[in-house]
Amino acid sequence: MIIDCHGHYTTAPKELQTYRDKQIEELKSPLAARSKGTLQITDDQIRESLEGAQLKLQRERGTDVTIFSPRASAMAHHIGDETTSRHWTQHCNELIYRVCNLYPKNFVGVCQLPQSPGVSPANCIAELERCVNEFGFIGCNLNPDPSGGNWTAPPLTDKYWYPFYEKMCELDVPAMVHVSSSCNPNFHATGAHYINADTTAFMQFIQADLFKDFPKLRFIIPHGGGAVPYHWGRYRGLAQDMKRPMLVDMIRNNVFFDTCVYHQAGLDLLTKIVPIDNILFGSEMVGAVRGIDPETNQYYDDTKKYVDKQGWLSDADKKKIFEGNARKVYPRIGKKI
Amino acid sequence: MIIDCHGHYTTAPKELQTYRDKQIEELKSPLAARSKGTLQITDDQIRESLEGAQLKLQRERGTDVTIFSPRASAMAHHIGDETTSRHWTQHCNELIYRVCNLYPKNFVGVCQLPQSPGVSPANCIAELERCVNEFGFIGCNLNPDPSGGNWTAPPLTDKYWYPFYEKMCELDVPAMVHVSSSCNPNFHATGAHYINADTTAFMQFIQADLFKDFPKLRFIIPHGGGAVPYHWGRYRGLAQDMKRPMLVDMIRNNVFFDTCVYHQAGLDLLTKIVPIDNILFGSEMVGAVRGIDPETNQYYDDTKKYVDKQGWLSDADKKKIFEGNARKVYPRIGKKI
Repeated sequence: MIIDCHGHYTTAPKELQTYRDKQIEELKSPLAARSKGTLQITDDQIRESLEGAQLKLQRERGTDVTIFSPRASAMAHHIGDETTSRHWTQHCNELIYRVCNLYPKNFVGVCQLPQSPGVSPANCIAELERCVNEFGFIGCNLNPDPSGGNWTAPPLTDKYWYPFYEKMCELDVPAMVHVSSSCNPNFHATGAHYINADTTAFMQFIQADLFKDFPKLRFIIPHGGGAVPYHWGRYRGLAQDMKRPMLVDMIRNNVFFDTCVYHQAGLDLLTKIVPIDNILFGSEMVGAVRGIDPETNQYYDDTKKYVDKQGWLSDADKKKIFEGNARKVYPRIGKKI
Repeated sequence: MIIDCHGHYTTAPKELQTYRDKQIEELKSPLAARSKGTLQITDDQIRESLEGAQLKLQRERGTDVTIFSPRASAMAHHIGDETTSRHWTQHCNELIYRVCNLYPKNFVGVCQLPQSPGVSPANCIAELERCVNEFGFIGCNLNPDPSGGNWTAPPLTDKYWYPFYEKMCELDVPAMVHVSSSCNPNFHATGAHYINADTTAFMQFIQADLFKDFPKLRFIIPHGGGAVPYHWGRYRGLAQDMKRPMLVDMIRNNVFFDTCVYHQAGLDLLTKIVPIDNILFGSEMVGAVRGIDPETNQYYDDTKKYVDKQGWLSDADKKKIFEGNARKVYPRIGKKI
């Protein structure tokens, strides 16, 4: 079985964006009623949005199940306030729940969180519980920068986040560290902000003793770990100079990278440098890069093809990357598939 | 000849920091005189600070010349105001000038700039002219985020920066894109902020037509280009989806990466993926990582050893990386060595 740990519902029916546009429009009127409202999307519309996209690509590429969450760039926690974020998040998660019910063999849910700048992450506990306990979701996407590129929240290792981590550990669900769109013109979302956040989170983990406080807390750092594997020597050296634990010890049970690296040499570096036990197959499909690489005539984000070519990996290694590590990091997936 | 394009005076005599501490202390007193003051450092102190460090390591590692600039993490453009930054910058650059005069075969100067948050980069023109015309410096370090981790300046492609770029082109000097320390607790300076800035700048260059406006403008993106070579497929794909020029065309005459990548596999990726004409040897010595890698018993930042091992590079390729490309990017170096 091949589990893709990183897929977002980037092809949702346009009614979702219509809802969001209306919600944002109403923010201009402080006296407007702040109700959750309704989303008018039929099951057929959901089917149509997936059949020609994620489901077609799963079949073509030979992947089985996608760990599926709302569109990351649309989370936009910086828009509006806590109420805005809660309503929007609930709708997005409910839509993922419907996707998973329509295609229980193809998708397993991961939730967006109702984060909002300056608001304690404890406000996300209720939605996490709802999604895990009622919807059967197996993890969440945690945004280390709800301000959308201004980086005003404390580091992920700060006690600010601890109440939420306690709930994650209690429910035994991991978080993918995933920012959303950027309202800072310096940062292109998928080309800079995403990658920077990955790199930033990893360095934060080096600096602090978060995993001593939470030995069972698990994070997936997406996009191949940002810049980290390429600069593995830099991070090993920094940890050493700072008298911190060795990287392999620090990450062992707690930090995992996906394979969302869109060329052979990059993905080769990842699986040669990072312990196999800390790598989860992912493609971010349909996501940041949608074209076909003229050098290979394959989709850039068909990351399975890159792993398939890695002759130095044993069958057991590949099984870990494609399935075993995902089952370890997301134990609740065992109830689903 | 082996030219190291990336060295900072990280070992300056402690009197430099004493001056800086006093300058910062005086910021608390708005009525204190804001004079440049003096720096009491003897030639012998300068010699002593280099003989056991950069000069010793040059000899041991077999490099000849270092393109040398003030300590990047100490630029701290976010401290104080324009006047603070101007006085501090002038002292730092004057110290580099003295280093280059004491060891003209070993060091060629690159200047810090008196940037300050919210102040036009045009305010840096006078110092650039002084350093190039009077001190014989051959380039500058340009900080894309003078706010120190809050990223409040416009992107490097914004017309905000154009007056300074006009002067760079007129003087025919390049800039290394180099942030300084971070006052944002999310970003470890050398482990996150530096690498993020490199990645961010590259994506900005993809998005805009800066090099159409300035065909002769040249940037060195340090630390091996941040995350870029590792995610080369992602950037190629993003440029393609956005109908932007191919990366190799965009960077050809304008964007260059150094070799500050501190493990063999990372540096192998760089020289296999990025055109050789766009790679300059650099080590950042004495810099971010000072330890010895227990896996190789070599200094992490002895990047020459990694290049030496790259058997797929021809002698002509290595000559470009070690010398030729630096002479092309920093043409004024020809007057020096």
